[in-house]
Formats: sequence, structure tokens, C-alpha cells
Amino acid sequence: MEISSSALRLPFLFLLVPLLLFFLLSPWNPLHNLSGGGDSAGRRTQFPPKSLTSISPPPAEPRSPPRNPLDPLTVGEIHRVRSILSSYQPFLHHFPSIQSMSLDEPDKSRVLGWKSGDPIPPRKAFVIALLDNQSHLLTIDLDSGRVETHEISSGSGYPMLTMEDVVAAVQTAVSYPELEASAAARGLSVANLSCISPSPGWFGPDEEGKRILKVLCFSKQGTPNFYMRPLEGLVMTVDVDRREVLQFSDTGKGIPIPGRANTDYRFRPGNKPPEMERINPISMEQPRGPSFTVTDGHLVKWANWEFHLKPDQRAGLVVSRVVVRDSETGAARSVMYKGFPSELFVPYMDADEGWYFKSYMDAGEFGLGATAMPLVPLNDCPRNAYYMDGIFVSADGQPFVQSNMICLFERYAGDAAWRHSELTVSSGGQELREARAKVTLVARMAASVGNYDYTFDWEFQTDGLIKITVSLSGMLMVKGTVHDNMNQVQNQDEMGPLVSENAIGVVHDHFITFHLDMDVDGPNNTFVKVNLVKEENVEGKTPRKSYLKPKRHVAKTEDDARIKLSLYDPSEFHVVNPSRRSRLGNPSGYKVVPGGNAASLLDHSDPPQLRSAFTNNQVIWVTPYNRSELWAGGLLVYQSHGDDTLDVWSQRNREIEDRDVVLWYTLGFHHVPCQEDFPVMPTVAASFQLKPVNFFERNPILTARPVFEEDLPVCRPSESASII
Amino acid sequence: MEISSSALRLPFLFLLVPLLLFFLLSPWNPLHNLSGGGDSAGRRTQFPPKSLTSISPPPAEPRSPPRNPLDPLTVGEIHRVRSILSSYQPFLHHFPSIQSMSLDEPDKSRVLGWKSGDPIPPRKAFVIALLDNQSHLLTIDLDSGRVETHEISSGSGYPMLTMEDVVAAVQTAVSYPELEASAAARGLSVANLSCISPSPGWFGPDEEGKRILKVLCFSKQGTPNFYMRPLEGLVMTVDVDRREVLQFSDTGKGIPIPGRANTDYRFRPGNKPPEMERINPISMEQPRGPSFTVTDGHLVKWANWEFHLKPDQRAGLVVSRVVVRDSETGAARSVMYKGFPSELFVPYMDADEGWYFKSYMDAGEFGLGATAMPLVPLNDCPRNAYYMDGIFVSADGQPFVQSNMICLFERYAGDAAWRHSELTVSSGGQELREARAKVTLVARMAASVGNYDYTFDWEFQTDGLIKITVSLSGMLMVKGTVHDNMNQVQNQDEMGPLVSENAIGVVHDHFITFHLDMDVDGPNNTFVKVNLVKEENVEGKTPRKSYLKPKRHVAKTEDDARIKLSLYDPSEFHVVNPSRRSRLGNPSGYKVVPGGNAASLLDHSDPPQLRSAFTNNQVIWVTPYNRSELWAGGLLVYQSHGDDTLDVWSQRNREIEDRDVVLWYTLGFHHVPCQEDFPVMPTVAASFQLKPVNFFERNPILTARPVFEEDLPVCRPSESASII
Repeated sequence: MEISSSALRLPFLFLLVPLLLFFLLSPWNPLHNLSGGGDSAGRRTQFPPKSLTSISPPPAEPRSPPRNPLDPLTVGEIHRVRSILSSYQPFLHHFPSIQSMSLDEPDKSRVLGWKSGDPIPPRKAFVIALLDNQSHLLTIDLDSGRVETHEISSGSGYPMLTMEDVVAAVQTAVSYPELEASAAARGLSVANLSCISPSPGWFGPDEEGKRILKVLCFSKQGTPNFYMRPLEGLVMTVDVDRREVLQFSDTGKGIPIPGRANTDYRFRPGNKPPEMERINPISMEQPRGPSFTVTDGHLVKWANWEFHLKPDQRAGLVVSRVVVRDSETGAARSVMYKGFPSELFVPYMDADEGWYFKSYMDAGEFGLGATAMPLVPLNDCPRNAYYMDGIFVSADGQPFVQSNMICLFERYAGDAAWRHSELTVSSGGQELREARAKVTLVARMAASVGNYDYTFDWEFQTDGLIKITVSLSGMLMVKGTVHDNMNQVQNQDEMGPLVSENAIGVVHDHFITFHLDMDVDGPNNTFVKVNLVKEENVEGKTPRKSYLKPKRHVAKTEDDARIKLSLYDPSEFHVVNPSRRSRLGNPSGYKVVPGGNAASLLDHSDPPQLRSAFTNNQVIWVTPYNRSELWAGGLLVYQSHGDDTLDVWSQRNREIEDRDVVLWYTLGFHHVPCQEDFPVMPTVAASFQLKPVNFFERNPILTARPVFEEDLPVCRPSESASII
Repeated sequence: MEISSSALRLPFLFLLVPLLLFFLLSPWNPLHNLSGGGDSAGRRTQFPPKSLTSISPPPAEPRSPPRNPLDPLTVGEIHRVRSILSSYQPFLHHFPSIQSMSLDEPDKSRVLGWKSGDPIPPRKAFVIALLDNQSHLLTIDLDSGRVETHEISSGSGYPMLTMEDVVAAVQTAVSYPELEASAAARGLSVANLSCISPSPGWFGPDEEGKRILKVLCFSKQGTPNFYMRPLEGLVMTVDVDRREVLQFSDTGKGIPIPGRANTDYRFRPGNKPPEMERINPISMEQPRGPSFTVTDGHLVKWANWEFHLKPDQRAGLVVSRVVVRDSETGAARSVMYKGFPSELFVPYMDADEGWYFKSYMDAGEFGLGATAMPLVPLNDCPRNAYYMDGIFVSADGQPFVQSNMICLFERYAGDAAWRHSELTVSSGGQELREARAKVTLVARMAASVGNYDYTFDWEFQTDGLIKITVSLSGMLMVKGTVHDNMNQVQNQDEMGPLVSENAIGVVHDHFITFHLDMDVDGPNNTFVKVNLVKEENVEGKTPRKSYLKPKRHVAKTEDDARIKLSLYDPSEFHVVNPSRRSRLGNPSGYKVVPGGNAASLLDHSDPPQLRSAFTNNQVIWVTPYNRSELWAGGLLVYQSHGDDTLDVWSQRNREIEDRDVVLWYTLGFHHVPCQEDFPVMPTVAASFQLKPVNFFERNPILTARPVFEEDLPVCRPSESASII
């Protein structure tokens, strides 16, 4: 699969296209660097966090050998896999498109048995390749150079899309003759258009047996923010592999393209700033440098935490072997084997021809890591951040660098980790004013999946709590309309929210389902629902008529652990280790603490909901550990029919008590857009927590030291400082 | 009412007692300072935020005259009120106990008509005084020196308790002869005890016609954290005014007092720190100083925000006249007239004699401001914080200073206010990587209501969002038990969670109901419930079977606006100004965005729930503005019967469309304690947001400037820095 240079002059872009262009246009083309054996030292030159150059842990060397069984494939290993596949008999005549290539992690028992210094287990790669419309699943042993397993998928669904797929679809569409008339009807030429290629969902037999993408076009005239300027009603259905437009529909020639005024979000020194007083520079400062270390590129150690952190082309950011040190014994205790966002489902709420299919599954269709561009220092992450690159694989099997894709930083946000004030006579009139400043460690990445930006944070607290936050920003998908004022509209509920002249912000949801392989003090855990039940008191026994009592329900099977959140039937959700008791006899545990959330209300039989049936049940599922059950929407998600989802696996209602279990938590958002979301959305965030519950013998930070004035840095304003 | 000096040697303390002791023992006794006309300049000497001494706004001078109609009573005004009351005929022979004294705010219309520079409206005080078991409600005109209104309350309930009330109750109880035997039965003398005096709730006629407090005792041997060492089963009921023990009950002589091991939470340099790597100093630095100003002691201006901030003895922290500047026109636009925590309800879930009554209403019973002790610099608030004092009133009508009670600081937590990444061909291959660092302004106070610490944050964002957070820390109320291990317990659900040897952490809830007098672009507002309804599609019209559609329901009356949160029947909650339309014709509005929450499940007929019926309906109520409806549990809450609650007012089902309305939001927590909460709880927080929705014409921070390296301070480690 080749991209001709003329293709680069075509006015298309979306999703992975920007990345592609980036690679091809950039003077420090990493594809070239790595495949050609060039020097990769320049990979960090784009955004040096200046103040950290001397104190940061040394950057990982992408060519250095793996040191940990979970380390992602290195550049050398990727080259080796490609070389093995090139001489693999079935691919000799036609090298397939590499839709994904990643480490085939060793068996969990093998990883758990491994200790630093041990030789690492045999390295294997898992490849999903596409050839002749068939998905080939291969495992390759890097040492022997052999293809160990090779299976052709017989289920529904195709592998993750590549940049090349997206480019092909757009290229096919923009060459389609009828497009010119559609552009002209709106006073434009094809050269004025930017076209994008969202995934089509799956809506029945017509769409089976071929890989299709929908192509939508926008006017890029006068703005980089083409998303705000749709050619409404224009939608092309493209066969990606045959490079053929299957359907061309344009029902919106009478709908004006929304204007470009106020759509540009780029900073220009001459921009008129918002009407407000300027804010003096403020910064998180840590002049002695960060307190964490990153060993061998991936092993993070900070305060009482240790975990393996790696970029992943599909999941984005994966934390593994999360271990916390016991506050008293210092022993390393397991909390979680693996955690990552398993799927992201984004259904739009509009039944029109150009909209009904919009029901993205971004992780499995486009890849959260694949769409994660470099974080912007000082604005995406603070000054004291350390950056980590991803080493990913393009469709031709070559490695490339996703630079500055993850940032890692310590956070002090001005809050207290605990506090109490009192004056006691028992201490001789001494004031008791105790408070402890809260400092945390944040691991962050941001995926720009086309219009939307998703920031994923894993935040570790010294009290043992892990907070997982997803923040949304970026652009709305807007729908063109003839209206430029709500007073022209009779039934306003029918239209949807007008966010700018001729632009409706279409209502949609976001659901992010996390795979959380909890191993609390070891793999064998039990899920306990601690239900808060109202007890009615016997008349006369007490003046109170009612109170709440926690009742523990051990989940024996998967059905017992399908949790729907309810404000009026509240529970706590514990993952405990029944074999590990505290000195008081309580089982060691972690609980899942939901925050603000939203549930999918779509029909369970609606095709998008079938495919994303992992959101049928909001908010928790628990399954027995199964090496192959990683992706809540299935391994092959693109155009899947929903035959390989968490909901399907879980129908077996397997036993889950006192075994190795995986907890799945879904974070949801309903988004009814408003004017403030135009032309770029202020960040909206939601989170949930994993919190120790009888895991420690007592408050693990009871004896933490407070901060004193003399500890803090000595700072002066920068002479060149501007006000912000 | 006088406190003899011998009382100070008695071993009691709780709730307001610590404050009292503080005032009387401290060398900088503010009661003395202010009542005796002494110098108050020393009030900030305890915790100088050193780096800020030169850049902080000048501290408010408590003797300076009020400059704003909403400014709290000054020291001089408090003296004047006391002097007026001293010569007021009904009080000539017996000066009453002043249970509360605060500014009687001018009528809202008068305040709204006032502009800076105008003479301030006549100053009035509202006093609640107790004399001969009657609650006297008085308004006093400070200019004329006249008592303008004087009413004796005929409803249920007593005014807020004073320190003197609490001291009297404990003093009475500890002098009670039988206590000695109870102490001795546990190997203690009365001198070893610390006793506290929680409020009794209200449970029927036996408790009417007199002010009662419950007194509970703890061993203070070997620990300042006596809360962890209860004399279980011992409870005394005291008539506060007659200083008489009405009932003495001790059913727990066989229950051991939990040990003192690991209960002390004080920092001592020799303490063994937790087992973890030390964290290098980290600080929020702003060497050019804060960007906000505090004018005339209370008027805060920052970025695009302006609001009046004042300490209040009952509500704690009150924000008023919250105004945001339009991002484009610069016009000052009203968001909220007044916001504060109106009541805090904490029911415990145990029916035993010593526990059933625990159903605190901390704001109306003890006062959130009255129990707010000085914040601890660098640990409760960051280095760049500015501190504000409260000027409150003691039972004898004299003013006192609640020093460093509020902190105000700008926060940069390392997050982005918005972001988007893209590469566009339309910009000539230029990378598009835009992100804007988020800086906010936080106003904070912390109330230590006996064992529990509540931190209240009002956080203002430049995008127009206000986030209100309540954080819980401090001590559990624990219940003594014969068990020191769960393996001794047959029915574990019956006992409750064992958090340390012989100590059960009793399950309880916290509900904080906020009074939010929204004035979005003016007083007349409408509450709109935007319900997200599932629409089923007509078969064949589209491949989709279902989608969500927002349906707007205008609330005509109070009944329409009683909102119960539901994950499966979701809505947005808008307060809009129907007369103020955007250029697109959308009404200007703010929405309430709930976060994690919990609902009260107690019987509506249960006495605690009757009294806190404002939590019958979780999560929103809307009422028409009524000057007298400030306190969700009633004006006189202590021992009230629930005849003056938000639920009662709202029964009238008044019209609320297009009028001045008040929105009430309840933030709830269920707390099932665990070992980690012992002996002091790691902070738990929940929040909700007020978010602009079609208030601005577009994203108001679209043109905000990013942060550049050269803006940031130049810092070096302090030479004396320790690791934390």
C-alpha cells in the first residue's frame, strides 16, 4: 500500500490522516529515522521541558533491549517481526497490511513469577494482518523467528484501521466526479474541501463482506477548524479496499455552510484576548527535580508506588503490575495486574442519513495511542513533567515514534491529604492544628480522535488511592441547518441545540470502559457488593424509626456482579482478597468509588448498542480472568456485529468467587452542546477511584511530614515574563 | 453567663469548647483585644505566609467602617449593638445570652441598586437572644440605636448553641457524682476523661420545653485523640439552662475502652515516617504575587470574576453578588446573588441508646464559621494563599476574631482548560497543537465540628464555571465493642465495621444543602429541566432504532422542580433568564452539574429526617426568593421539630417561572468506615458545578494565551529544604 505524493496535495484529513501527514511532511520523519536506521536522538527536540533536561530520568532508548516481560516491542523487535513475516510462506507473494502489531504478553503466571534480574521470558509479537479481505491473527516467536500460530478470523469485524485505510477512503471519495457538483452548489471547488472518513458502524447485510468508511466533507476556507463548516447532507460510502464509492448522497444543497467567523482557535500573538484581568504567572515548581524514577524506560517508582507504564497503539496508556508498599512493613503489595481503557463508545443522537451511523468505537476502530499526538508542555502538562514516547507500527510493518505521548508528573494542587483541628486540655492547652499537603503522581496521555480530544489521567495518591479521570475537549461534530436563530424554529426540541449560526451541536454520549484486572494482594479475589439497606426499627425499641445497615453480598457468578448504579439503592463495590486478612480479621480490599456518570439508554437491539453491549449494564461487570478477554467490544471491532463483547462473554455466567477476576468500569457522559462549546470545548472531566478498604492496617499516611516554609523553593519572576 | 476559671481545669472539650479554650488561654486572646480596644495587628502573626507579606492585599482592618451593603458587622458595630441591647428596656434587668448576631442584610432590591461609591444603606443587626428559655428575634438599627423589631419565637427549636452552652453542659455532667463510678469501673478517674456534648436531635415530648445536650466521655489517657477511646454505653442527658443531669445511663461497663496505640496524629520530628520514598519539595509558585485583589476587606476581583466574600458564624463562607465579565463586551453580568451551605445533616446509623440521637445539623446547631479554626498554611492552603479573618460574636455580645479562617488562592494543578491537536493541510502542513493551561481561583474554609473536619471550596474558572467542593477529614465517631477481631463475630453485618481493636466505625451519612440564589443576568429566572428521553425510531426510516432527544420542561411551580437524580432518567438542570437571549436566540443560562452523590434513605417520618426534610428530595429544589427562607432546616434548628424546613415552605407549591428563584442543591456522602479511616481519615471529596450554558456567545476563553517557558519563575531549592 503506497501513498503517492500527489495524494498529499489533496484536501483531506481526519483521524489518522493528520498523523500520516505529520510523518511524511516533517523534517524529522520518524518512519524514516527508524526504518532507515537513523539517529533517533532528535525525537525529544521538539518540546524540551527545558528546566528538566538535567534532572529528568534519561529518556528511554527505543533501540535498547527489553528489560521487563511487559515492555512493548522495541524498534529492533518490530523490524525483526517484519522480516520474519516477509519470509513467511503465506505472505511471500503479497505482504499483508499490518493492522496492528504489539507484544504478545507472556502468560500472567509467568509474568508474576518474574523478578528483576531474571532473564525475560521469550519475546513474542501478536500481529493482526489484513490480506484479501481476511483478518489474519498471528503470534510470532522472536527468538526462533517462527510464526507460532496463524488463524484467520471467522467472526464478524475487521481489525483497527490504519492511516493508509483512512487516506485511501478519502482519496477515493474526493476523486469521485459528483463531488464537484456538490461543492459547486455551495460555491466551492473540491480544492476548498477537507474530508474526513468516520467509521460506519454496522447496520446489516448490505455492509458486510467489505470494509467501508463514510466520507464527509467540510469547507476549509478561511479556518483551520473545518469541523465547524460541514457540507450538510453530503455523505459518501466508500469501499476501502476496492477504492470505490458505493453510495453518494447529497440531500443538503440548500443548507448553508456555517460561516468561518470565530472558528479559528489558534493562538496568534495579535489575538484580542478575552475581556479579563491578566493572571500573573503561576507554576508547579520542584527545583530539586521529580521524586520518581523511570527505570528501563517503563518501570515507574514513586513514593510508595511502583508500576509498569507503557504506550499502546490501541489502548493508549497501559499500567501494569501496580504495587503499593505497605506503610508499616514496607512490603510490596499487589493492587492491580493491568489497567487500561478497553473501549470508547460515542453514539450520536440523530437519525438522519448523514448521522445515524455515527457510533464510534474509537479504541478498536482508530486506536487511542495511534491518535495520541505530542502533549503540549506547560499547557497540557506542567513544567515538572517527564515525557515518554510510544513506539508503534505502521501498515507496512515499520516502526514509528509517537513522541511525547505520555507525561508523568507530580502534582500539588493546594489540597490537604488529611486534617484535623482541635485544642486539647490534655495537651496542656496546646493547639492541635494538623494538616498534610497532598502530593500525587499523574500519568497522562491525550488522544485526538479526529475532532474530539480525550485526556486520560491515572493519579496515584500516597494514601493508596488511584483516581482515573477522563477529560473531554476538542471540537463538536456540528450539523448544518438553514436556521441561524432559534426564534425561526417552531419545535425547538426537534431541532437540537443551535451553537452558532447554521450549526447544530448534535447531542451525543461518550462511554469509556476500563479493563481493571485487580489483583489485591494476589490474583484470587472476590467481588463483594456492600449494599446499604434501610432497616426499620421495631416500634418502642428506640426513638429512631430507621437507619442504614451495610449488608455484604459475595458475588458468586458474573450475573451477581452486573451492577447498575442507583442513588436510592446504594452500595459500595469491594474487590477483596478472602485469604488475606488484616490483624482485625477484615479481608484486604480495594473499592471502586464511582463519581459523576451517565448510562446508555439506547435499545439493546439497536445495532450500535449491540456492538457496544458492554454499556448495557452501567456501571460494573466482573469476569473471571481470561487471557483473550481484553477488549470490551471484541478483538475485531470495526464493522463488528457485537458477537465478541463483554456482554456475550459474560452470558456464560461463570464463577467468580475467590478467583482471578477482572473488573470493568464504565465512565459515561451525556453531551448536550451549548454555545460555550463552540468552536472548541472547555474541558469536561469525570472520574472514578480505586480506594483501599481494610487494605492497610490504618491510615497509611498518618505519620507523613507536614510541609514547612523552609522546605520550599526560592523563586523570582522571570525577567521576560508576560502576563497570561 | 460567666465561665469560672476553675472550669478551665476541668477535663472537657468538644465542638465549640476548643474555641473557647483557645480564646481564653491564648496570649493573643482576641476577645480581650477587641473588647478592650487593644491592637488587633497581631492577628496575623501566628501563621504568616512569609513569601506573601509584601504582595498580599492589605489585611482588612476589623475596625474600619463597612464599605459595602453586605459587609459583615464590624467590631465597632458589634460593640454598638451590645450597647443598644444593654439599655433596651426588656433586657435592663437581665442581659440575655446572645446566641447569634449578624448583619441584617438590606433588602435585595436595595443591594442590587447600590453601586460602589454610593452611601451604604442603613446598617442593621439581626440578633437571636435567649432569655428565660425564650428565643428573642430582634432587628436593631445601628444609626438610630433603636430596636426595630422584637419577636419571641413561637415555633419549635432553639437558636444556635454558644460555647458557653457547651461548656455548661459538660461542666454539669462531669460534676455528676455517678460519673466517678463509671470511670472507676473502667480503671479511670474523672480527671482522665474528655467529655463532649453533642446535640440531642429531637425525639418527642419528653425533650421539649428545655434545652438539652447529651454528654459522652472518652479516655484522654496517653493520646490527644480521645475520640478513639469512648466509654461506650455511657450517656448523660443534661438540661443546659438548669445545669442538671436529667438522665444518666451506663450500660457499657463491660466494654473495654479501645487502646491508645497508633491514635496520636500529631507530627513529631522523631516520628517514624510511612514506608515510602520521600518526595522532593513541590510548590505552587507565583513570584509576581496573586492576580486577585481584595478591596475593602471583602470584595474579590480576579480575572473575569468579581464577588463579595464574607465569613459567617453560621454558614461559614458566604459568596454574594457573583458577577462574571462578558468575554467579549467586558460587561459585568450577574450569575448568583448569594451562595452558601445552608445546613449540614449527619445522621448516624445505630439505634442504641448512646447513638440513636446522633443526627447533627451542624450549621444551625453549632455554626460552620463558629467551628472554623485557623487554616494551616502550606498544608491546608498553598504558599500563595491570602488569609481572611472572621469577626464573630460571643454569648456576652462581644466580638472576637476567628483568624485565618478563609484562604483565597490561585490554583494551577497541571490541567488544560481546553485543547486540540491536529495537522492541517489547509495551514500548509503546520502542526496544530493548541492547549491552554487552566488556572482557577479557590476560596476555602474548614470547619472542625468536633471530630469531623469539613473543607468548603468555591472554585472559579475563567470559562465561567464555578465548582463547589466539600472535603471530609478528621476523626470517626467510634463505638466501643468487646470484639477485637472480626473472627469473633457471627453475624458481621449486625456489628458494623471494626476499624481498630474494640472500635467500630459507625456508619453515617453527610448531607450538605447549599442555598444558591441564582440571578442569571438578573433576578428573574426560570428553572428548566432538560430531560434526555429515548426516542424509538419508526421502522424503516433509518437503520438506527433509538436515540436520545433533549426535551425542555419549564418548571412552573415548586413541585415541578423537585428533582431526584437518576442515572436511567437523566436530565440537565438549567436556570435560565427567559428575557435575555443570545444572538442565536438561546436563553442565557447556567446549569447545575451534579457529581458523585448520595441520598438519604431514612423514613420521612423518622424524627431526624423530619427535621432535615430538605434531604427528602435528592438533589434539587427550587423556591421563589423569600428573604426569610435562608436556612434549609429552619432558622431555629437545635431541637426543632421540622416545622420550618425547605420541605415545609415548598409544600405551598408556589409559582417559580420567570421570577426571582433560589436553587437548593444537596451534596451527600454515605460513609462506611474502614481501617484506613483510623485514627484520622484521608480526605474524601465530592463536588458539583454551576456551568454556563448559552450564557456566553461562544467559548469565553477561546483567545486565551498559552503559557510559554519564559513566563515562568526562576526557582532554586531552598538550602535548608528537607524532603517530605
